[in-house]
Amino acid sequence: MGSVIAKARYFREGNPSDAPGGVGVLPPPVLHDRLRLYHVHMNPYGHRVLLILDAKRAPYEIMYLDPLKLPSWFVQKNPRHYLRLPVKIPVLETPTGHGDKFLYESVVICDYLDEKYARNPLHSSDPYVKAQDRLLIERFNELIKGSLECFDTNFAFGSEQILQTMEVFEKELATRGATYFSGNRPGMLDYMIWPWIERLYLLRCVNQKKFDEKRNMFPNFADWGDQMQLDDVVKKHASSPSEYFEYYKNARAHSMGYYL
Amino acid sequence: MGSVIAKARYFREGNPSDAPGGVGVLPPPVLHDRLRLYHVHMNPYGHRVLLILDAKRAPYEIMYLDPLKLPSWFVQKNPRHYLRLPVKIPVLETPTGHGDKFLYESVVICDYLDEKYARNPLHSSDPYVKAQDRLLIERFNELIKGSLECFDTNFAFGSEQILQTMEVFEKELATRGATYFSGNRPGMLDYMIWPWIERLYLLRCVNQKKFDEKRNMFPNFADWGDQMQLDDVVKKHASSPSEYFEYYKNARAHSMGYYL
Repeated sequence: MGSVIAKARYFREGNPSDAPGGVGVLPPPVLHDRLRLYHVHMNPYGHRVLLILDAKRAPYEIMYLDPLKLPSWFVQKNPRHYLRLPVKIPVLETPTGHGDKFLYESVVICDYLDEKYARNPLHSSDPYVKAQDRLLIERFNELIKGSLECFDTNFAFGSEQILQTMEVFEKELATRGATYFSGNRPGMLDYMIWPWIERLYLLRCVNQKKFDEKRNMFPNFADWGDQMQLDDVVKKHASSPSEYFEYYKNARAHSMGYYL
Repeated sequence: MGSVIAKARYFREGNPSDAPGGVGVLPPPVLHDRLRLYHVHMNPYGHRVLLILDAKRAPYEIMYLDPLKLPSWFVQKNPRHYLRLPVKIPVLETPTGHGDKFLYESVVICDYLDEKYARNPLHSSDPYVKAQDRLLIERFNELIKGSLECFDTNFAFGSEQILQTMEVFEKELATRGATYFSGNRPGMLDYMIWPWIERLYLLRCVNQKKFDEKRNMFPNFADWGDQMQLDDVVKKHASSPSEYFEYYKNARAHSMGYYL
């Protein structure tokens, strides 16, 4: 038991491949001065939250979990368990006086962080623009299945669903006439869609020429991607196209858990 | 054509059964001093927005639409059309300088209204409580299919899904220890779930005894329902159990469109 506690480095930003799992894993200590993200390595929804945590400069630590061997205390404490729903990851644990301290759903977590930490507001202060951005995030969420399908079916290029979504965002950038969806720096909408766009670059490893062809169809969106990659927050949590390619190749082999 | 324009009273709070539909219907005039809700009579998602419009005392008019005969201009202008998704109702049209003026998704519309109009804030000012409420609203949304199923299958009582959800909200009210989820007056969570709870009372028309039995299983939630019915905003948009009963009986007959 003691040795599990001693593995506390895994609870922070340790080696995600050593993620503790199963019934023998004890819960991490109570939080006081920081947030804790329960995260699955390479999970894009958790990636969203990591971007926002750093964009807001919130103090946090990461606890990596194996989605196929969730510790029982995690399931028990999980608000989705209480709500009689299957447990979801990522979960944000936050020190607060309000009893249950866990939030889930990446979009809700990220909006919470934006409201909780005043520094660097990520949503527009105009309620109408904020509502539009929320609808575009929802619109993007509908692509997500399509992109997984893309990774699943031998990394097929340019499924109709992906191209339609890219077109929507391409037009939207043109309409807004700015570098980022949020103006001259990345905001909530930019960060919410980024994890999946970063993963799309793995298609470079499959066929660079085809990748460039598709890329040229969406010049604004392509420029946006270039700019996003220069952002410090994005850089901190970036993986390379070849890392994603290897990961998804293996994920397809053992099929479950990677998009949990 | 002129006669269609002359039917302008239907665009306001006219007789919803005369809802204009089809290609011959001209768009209503441009807005200046009020919002416009495109609504389907008896639609619970539109009911949500009506409650919030009045809770916020926002100036608005209603345009009733027949979901099976949507005017082509409505489809063309609809942001979901631009997003290459099937059109959804309700839609809120709002006078603003930002080009496209339409919002959809009842939850997004209602959050927009809460931010836009300062009077009577409906969300908690504590970001954590607000996030919890958003998750509970999402949790309730998962019931909605279940309740439709309930109305569809001869108004079956107490499907497992409904009872589980009621239990979650019963416990939550007990934990919060207040009359309403939001404290001593109805807030966003209260209004977001109300349209479906109001409809559940139609089960009284099917079997009063069984209704009372189920009701007694959830004393806090039952008291909450009694209090909600005394709220002026709720009263303004209320229909009686027998009205709902008749409506859903007929909706089942022509099967489509009533939950659009």
